[in-house]
Amino acid sequence: MNNSQKKSLSSACILVIGNEILSGRTEDKNINFIAKRCDEIGVSIDEVRIIPDEIKIIKDTVLFCHKNFDYVFTTGGIGPTHDDITTECIGSAFNLEVEVNKEALKRLKAHYNKLKVELNESRIKMAKIPKGAELIDNPVSSAPGFIVENIFVLPGVPKILQAMFNGIEDKIRGVTNIVSKNIVVYSAEGEIAELLESIQGKYPDVSIGSYPYFRPPDVGTNIVLRSIHQNLISEATIAICKKLKEYKIQFEKT
Amino acid sequence: MNNSQKKSLSSACILVIGNEILSGRTEDKNINFIAKRCDEIGVSIDEVRIIPDEIKIIKDTVLFCHKNFDYVFTTGGIGPTHDDITTECIGSAFNLEVEVNKEALKRLKAHYNKLKVELNESRIKMAKIPKGAELIDNPVSSAPGFIVENIFVLPGVPKILQAMFNGIEDKIRGVTNIVSKNIVVYSAEGEIAELLESIQGKYPDVSIGSYPYFRPPDVGTNIVLRSIHQNLISEATIAICKKLKEYKIQFEKT
Repeated sequence: MNNSQKKSLSSACILVIGNEILSGRTEDKNINFIAKRCDEIGVSIDEVRIIPDEIKIIKDTVLFCHKNFDYVFTTGGIGPTHDDITTECIGSAFNLEVEVNKEALKRLKAHYNKLKVELNESRIKMAKIPKGAELIDNPVSSAPGFIVENIFVLPGVPKILQAMFNGIEDKIRGVTNIVSKNIVVYSAEGEIAELLESIQGKYPDVSIGSYPYFRPPDVGTNIVLRSIHQNLISEATIAICKKLKEYKIQFEKT
Repeated sequence: MNNSQKKSLSSACILVIGNEILSGRTEDKNINFIAKRCDEIGVSIDEVRIIPDEIKIIKDTVLFCHKNFDYVFTTGGIGPTHDDITTECIGSAFNLEVEVNKEALKRLKAHYNKLKVELNESRIKMAKIPKGAELIDNPVSSAPGFIVENIFVLPGVPKILQAMFNGIEDKIRGVTNIVSKNIVVYSAEGEIAELLESIQGKYPDVSIGSYPYFRPPDVGTNIVLRSIHQNLISEATIAICKKLKEYKIQFEKT
């Protein structure tokens, strides 16, 4: 994505917090989900960081991202155990006291009451929220996420995160008309590199990406055009297809 | 992982370079692979960053990671097309001229000759390597990766990256005796949070992680203990199991 396109988009960062992702024990499933949803509403994910469960690193990274992106989505570290330290780090980063939030506690009480499970001290920890933060509803397991400044604090369990994301989409402003177009080329990247470069040169406001696939014996390339300008996408697509025909390269628009 | 454990490990960072991951179009498959392999040889992945195909961002991030980690693994951006700019960014970051590497060119020639495919200008681009860099063998599609300082430059296509990773493992020094132990608890995280915290307090050199799983109607928690000290892992495991029995919580060691 080039600069002229980017300036008209909201920019965002995903911050994955968790040793289990860094050790390879757990495969992250949230980055791709959030990236796709943001893409649909025209918010551009400009960076992702995966960081360990360490207070100083979390605080420093949250503050850096707060300053450098319009929106920051954190995942992980808001459960009931000793290694869940995201909430206290965010409170500390913004000098906000972390206290039991009455509404959050009410929701936890109702949830655990229904399950006939004791609301013990560890679970009450999940109702501790930085003062003044806005809650994010959790329709699955009741413990809420929250919003502080431009930081959206979400859990790590994918099913719960996905259910909670619906509740924040209307709070994220993007442009709604990012258009993308895909051309599947049944040839290796190396065959089409030169022609793509020439078209990219002519359309600086269209981001033209080239993504090889490799499923032996088949090789091929996906060409992805993205822009907020529908007319430029159409023009650049026509120009690429014309060139592909000239070069006698098989392709399909999708 | 606490500090005393960390200092004895080599630290590494993964740098994923590619707009297609940030837009959600492609789901990253390399982070988890590299993290697992590093974990096996005792190299600790301390951070992951996913960044866009932009010269300044790539250069700045590579230099930052070069200074702050023992090893840096980059993935993506070394193919033949206009959006593959990793090599030139790394050359520029370290003030190294990027030139056609004779050995790399020889390999590409042999590969494309065998496939009866033209070695055109775009493909020759893949033989351009920063001066003085060590090549990383590519047994799948021949175009090599390379090593500059502590930066290991790898491709984005998972099958190719995985094949190439075998060739670099002997160049990465880690400790070989990280031990981990897993206890599956058939109870929610909130039931065991307190007992885990007390054990963690007693064993600062063991990293005790707690990872809930949520497959309705089942909920449960994986407790993962990790350390370079086998004896401490055993002691802490025994202590946790004893507490679980006291609390009448069902579990299984794996």
